[in-house]
Amino acid sequence: MHENNKRTIIMKELDAIKKNDFSFSSGHILGSMCTQPHPIAKEAYLKFLETNLGDPELFPGTKEIESKLIAFISDLLHAPKTSGGQIVSGGTEGNITAMWIAKQLNKKKEIILSESAHFSFKKIESIMGLKLVKIPLTKDYNIDISSLKKKINTNTVAVLGIAGSTELGTIDPIPELSDICYDENLFLHIDAAFGGYVIPFLKELNYNNPDFDFLLKGVSTISIDAHKMGYSAIPLGTLIIRDKKWLEQTSVESPCISSKKQSGIFGTRSGGPVAAAYAVAKYLGRDGYKKLIENCMDITHYTEEKLREIGLPLVIKPTMNVLGVKLKKLDKVVNKLSKNNWKVNKIDHLSCIRIVIMPQITKQIIDEFIPILKKTCEEVGEL
Amino acid sequence: MHENNKRTIIMKELDAIKKNDFSFSSGHILGSMCTQPHPIAKEAYLKFLETNLGDPELFPGTKEIESKLIAFISDLLHAPKTSGGQIVSGGTEGNITAMWIAKQLNKKKEIILSESAHFSFKKIESIMGLKLVKIPLTKDYNIDISSLKKKINTNTVAVLGIAGSTELGTIDPIPELSDICYDENLFLHIDAAFGGYVIPFLKELNYNNPDFDFLLKGVSTISIDAHKMGYSAIPLGTLIIRDKKWLEQTSVESPCISSKKQSGIFGTRSGGPVAAAYAVAKYLGRDGYKKLIENCMDITHYTEEKLREIGLPLVIKPTMNVLGVKLKKLDKVVNKLSKNNWKVNKIDHLSCIRIVIMPQITKQIIDEFIPILKKTCEEVGEL
Repeated sequence: MHENNKRTIIMKELDAIKKNDFSFSSGHILGSMCTQPHPIAKEAYLKFLETNLGDPELFPGTKEIESKLIAFISDLLHAPKTSGGQIVSGGTEGNITAMWIAKQLNKKKEIILSESAHFSFKKIESIMGLKLVKIPLTKDYNIDISSLKKKINTNTVAVLGIAGSTELGTIDPIPELSDICYDENLFLHIDAAFGGYVIPFLKELNYNNPDFDFLLKGVSTISIDAHKMGYSAIPLGTLIIRDKKWLEQTSVESPCISSKKQSGIFGTRSGGPVAAAYAVAKYLGRDGYKKLIENCMDITHYTEEKLREIGLPLVIKPTMNVLGVKLKKLDKVVNKLSKNNWKVNKIDHLSCIRIVIMPQITKQIIDEFIPILKKTCEEVGEL
Repeated sequence: MHENNKRTIIMKELDAIKKNDFSFSSGHILGSMCTQPHPIAKEAYLKFLETNLGDPELFPGTKEIESKLIAFISDLLHAPKTSGGQIVSGGTEGNITAMWIAKQLNKKKEIILSESAHFSFKKIESIMGLKLVKIPLTKDYNIDISSLKKKINTNTVAVLGIAGSTELGTIDPIPELSDICYDENLFLHIDAAFGGYVIPFLKELNYNNPDFDFLLKGVSTISIDAHKMGYSAIPLGTLIIRDKKWLEQTSVESPCISSKKQSGIFGTRSGGPVAAAYAVAKYLGRDGYKKLIENCMDITHYTEEKLREIGLPLVIKPTMNVLGVKLKKLDKVVNKLSKNNWKVNKIDHLSCIRIVIMPQITKQIIDEFIPILKKTCEEVGEL
């Protein structure tokens, strides 16, 4: 077969299969915390696709872009001069890496975390053999500080604070966690995979958010994902680390490649997503992100209002651009919406659906969705 | 600033920084086991860039492509019908996942592996708290079977066989390892990150290679990287698992996403590299890969001959498309080559450089390189 024909046939096959996917650009994915990347992300990604940051001396240019991206994020999170950063594939690897550092530093076993911790901690428990000490939630769905205090003991490897929970976008009382951990000399990891690109701008927009980052002296590490609210492409998370020396805890000798040691979990990793996240950061800048967050929050409030109008209650008043919509007939609503090509994520134990107002979600999409949600709820007897 | 201007300025900045990178397409990267991806890989990657296989019900099409890719690789490795596959980011994650499965299955602690095991096992030791029991190498740089037998004990979690070592491309005596592990009921993981796309075709090309894959009843898991000799883009590895039920050992409940459970280490992961590897597999097919390997081996033999002509000895006769060139003045040669824009990888403890004949390396490139290598060796007093 002619080579070009073969190419065309394969691309046609891929296109045909892809029709079965939902797409971010359609606006019909309403429950994911991932996003349709900014157009400049794709362009930059492709340019650096074949580079390998796991073999850094082959790609000193790409390595420089990585440093610039880490500098942008470190600055966003008020990281001190002594800090370091590790590019990771996303929140899960960020959490694993943070726990790896903590375990190496203090050789202890128990992670104290709330019931709304991301499920990656169950992987950490299984892979690393660490024990999860679960703390109940307050009525606002945050970690209960008084319960937490009782669980601290000489075997505590780390405490987890959540800045933008997976379920509802809630923010734990990080200043209190920081004080406790600072006083008790405990490792405090903040999972800001979702909130890391949101909270700094909420503050600038005069939302009343307490500090959550390295301004708090008890915070040890923060995980933040550019492929979530950083408006960039998968896979790109970053773990920012208060003391860059701690990265040595995850470094092993690496014969056969161009660096003597390699830190972090991944070996080979493309510079593509790094260049993408950097290009978006450079394109939007702090001002651009601020406008983006302002817009997402506007649409969140708009959606909240529209949901109220059709009589659907929220689990809590949104802290950020995440809405938990309470439903009695959860499965029926979710399945029917899915059949009608709308995807919301289901949170069984809260009996709610999660709607996330990501950058690609417009008021027009909400205006299209709300009547469909209302009709669906009526049809299954929810309303 | 006009939006389009901003875009242009950022792309110019990226292009300028990228000039500091070495590139696969230039042919001057001679030591890496990564490759310039096949053109169809890039095209397919971009099409699926924003899909997230960590949230599979949103992307049933992409999920289907993943299944097709796993089927292709399973077939290549003679995996039984009961087998399963897990897409991973590369060899490191493949090795970690295999050891995670083994540890969950038997709750033991000691990995038996040779001194040429990839450095990712040092990460495994540190992250998972498993102990590495190092077995010396034979004069052919393979695991010493009699030493290995003495180290097996009731605490053995897994045995590692290497099918294409990082250093020299050597292949351990996998049939013997398989017999031992089958008899002793031990978990046998094969690291074929590099060799997995090579050895099956060497056999078809009448090289005298013993079996290394699931044809051997003692083999439990095989790690194989499409972003190495699969001629595709980073990050794409696959772990093929003899019994798909074992994947449950790495599965945790995953609220907030569209699947009830998620297996494997990482959460969010793009379908881009999956579609890329599938497109390359479809484009080349088994015949195309066979021709590719035949060509790489031809150039390997050609390079071997040229090296002999200029008087540089090899560490061993190449098993596959990897050459270890012995040098007394290792650092001086490598540094001087690097200054002249040629990159070979340095293996200190063998006092050799590694040259890997990846798909983008042509005879013309070797013809260009050999005189430069000769001149460099003469200048530093190696020759």
